[in-house]
Amino acid sequence: MDARVPPVTPLHEVDPTILLVLNLAGTFVFGLSGGLAAVRARLDIFGVMALGVVVGLAGGITRDVLIGIPPQTFRDWRYLVVAGGAGLVAFLAPRWLDRLGRPILILDGAGLALFCVTGASTALDHHVGGLEAVVLGAITGIGGGMLRDIILREIPIVLRAGLYAIPALIGASIVVVAYKLGIHGLMVPVAGIGVCFLIRLIGIHYDLDMPRPPE
Amino acid sequence: MDARVPPVTPLHEVDPTILLVLNLAGTFVFGLSGGLAAVRARLDIFGVMALGVVVGLAGGITRDVLIGIPPQTFRDWRYLVVAGGAGLVAFLAPRWLDRLGRPILILDGAGLALFCVTGASTALDHHVGGLEAVVLGAITGIGGGMLRDIILREIPIVLRAGLYAIPALIGASIVVVAYKLGIHGLMVPVAGIGVCFLIRLIGIHYDLDMPRPPE
Amino acid sequence: MDARVPPVTPLHEVDPTILLVLNLAGTFVFGLSGGLAAVRARLDIFGVMALGVVVGLAGGITRDVLIGIPPQTFRDWRYLVVAGGAGLVAFLAPRWLDRLGRPILILDGAGLALFCVTGASTALDHHVGGLEAVVLGAITGIGGGMLRDIILREIPIVLRAGLYAIPALIGASIVVVAYKLGIHGLMVPVAGIGVCFLIRLIGIHYDLDMPRPPE
Repeated sequence: MDARVPPVTPLHEVDPTILLVLNLAGTFVFGLSGGLAAVRARLDIFGVMALGVVVGLAGGITRDVLIGIPPQTFRDWRYLVVAGGAGLVAFLAPRWLDRLGRPILILDGAGLALFCVTGASTALDHHVGGLEAVVLGAITGIGGGMLRDIILREIPIVLRAGLYAIPALIGASIVVVAYKLGIHGLMVPVAGIGVCFLIRLIGIHYDLDMPRPPE
Repeated sequence: MDARVPPVTPLHEVDPTILLVLNLAGTFVFGLSGGLAAVRARLDIFGVMALGVVVGLAGGITRDVLIGIPPQTFRDWRYLVVAGGAGLVAFLAPRWLDRLGRPILILDGAGLALFCVTGASTALDHHVGGLEAVVLGAITGIGGGMLRDIILREIPIVLRAGLYAIPALIGASIVVVAYKLGIHGLMVPVAGIGVCFLIRLIGIHYDLDMPRPPE
Repeated sequence: MDARVPPVTPLHEVDPTILLVLNLAGTFVFGLSGGLAAVRARLDIFGVMALGVVVGLAGGITRDVLIGIPPQTFRDWRYLVVAGGAGLVAFLAPRWLDRLGRPILILDGAGLALFCVTGASTALDHHVGGLEAVVLGAITGIGGGMLRDIILREIPIVLRAGLYAIPALIGASIVVVAYKLGIHGLMVPVAGIGVCFLIRLIGIHYDLDMPRPPE
């Protein structure tokens, strides 16, 4: 958080250590997803760790650049270490992680829920408008995975299939609507995270897709 | 426009409402191009709207990041709504839009002409040098389409075929040269837009390409 | 260099003209690499020059955006001219350059060595942490080539094969470690450039790759 801007969202009521641990955990899970995709694409050890960093950090970096503030993750080495470490784990134990496919997918959904809420809160803290904060929250959650797919030469999966962006948009919307209604307290981010995570789980369980254009 | 920087280009003499309407119209046409390309690539409804936003906004966002100012379009929700709305139109009525191929191509040329001129003016207003302002003007016009092609896993068409970047560079150059010569007045942006649009129309009509390297 | 920030690294002891000439030479060599790749991909003359600019400038621009400062190369037209000129040379004389394959590869290694050291120094000058400065130094060296491959629809070679990112990380680390140890003087950047270049040459000579994940 940029110390010069007084935060306006309830997220700052969370104990900073808990928030840091949550953020690092989300970064780690996203880094695993990047590392695993890189192993499948047969990148070398540097490439696998780099993809871990990209997926772990790119969403938040994109959000900060679009807000117009220095990317916060480049001011805290722990995010780089955790994301690169996740890539290293993927390089060393890809088979073990592949067998954990479903739990990782669920943890990834939890990371998505966390990041869309922290992303929207950060945007509001920097006095961005409501719709922009919703979009920036979603970008925080989906940006890393989009860049992963572009680097690995695939059309981003989030644009094509699955229920991934919609829960992120809804989670971010809950934060923004509560803020506009003057609702404070920790229940706001908790609700945003919970609803986003729940919708994502439903999407995973029933293998839901968004509508596609007619042939 | 960043209110803290006194504008130096004639663009600020344009009635702000007219300029806004023009900019939103250009954003809409660019958003249609993104949405249509996304429909052809079989993205889902979120992907189609997201591509509309990317093509409508990415050029101006890239310009602002390269200048070093907070992206202006993320400070005004109307651009997001118009670009996303254009994507939605492309999702709902792709066949109707496909039949309008040529009028849309011409409107896209008008958007290109507008954006290279407003882009170069914005750059000059922020005290960027002349050559840099020309390049930033062209990026404002062509950046969205380039990112569309990269996301859809194609080599950007603007780098390969057609007469698209050259009219943008010429339109931006007219703004910059007039500024350096101390020529003021609304005729400057009008000339930049007119010349860029005309060259683009000639390129469309005669299906002109730029020279390619020998085999 | 942003004049408002007093530099803390030994790089500012280098005669500014010498540093500028070195930087422009590195930009030119990187621009050649972008232009040649664009000629091979059969882009048109604008595309070839644009790829020269992308490879010559994108690493430093990405570094500056991640630090949170206005990209320096967009405040100095000489970099644009040199990088675009390198693209033009590649367009006009691709066969002649292709025959120079090995010397260009070696010059590219020299550019990599220079850019990772200047990149890490710039990051330290802006009070970024040590690990972040190492990563930003490497990004300065490899970012342009990565974007070249993404635009040309290839998985970035630096993530897949060769010994390219590792020497950049080591060269940047030398700068950062010396800074943390309080070691000053011109021998620091010279050592960083020399070691990076040497490892890169060894990688070229023995055709070394980094470890890959098991099949």
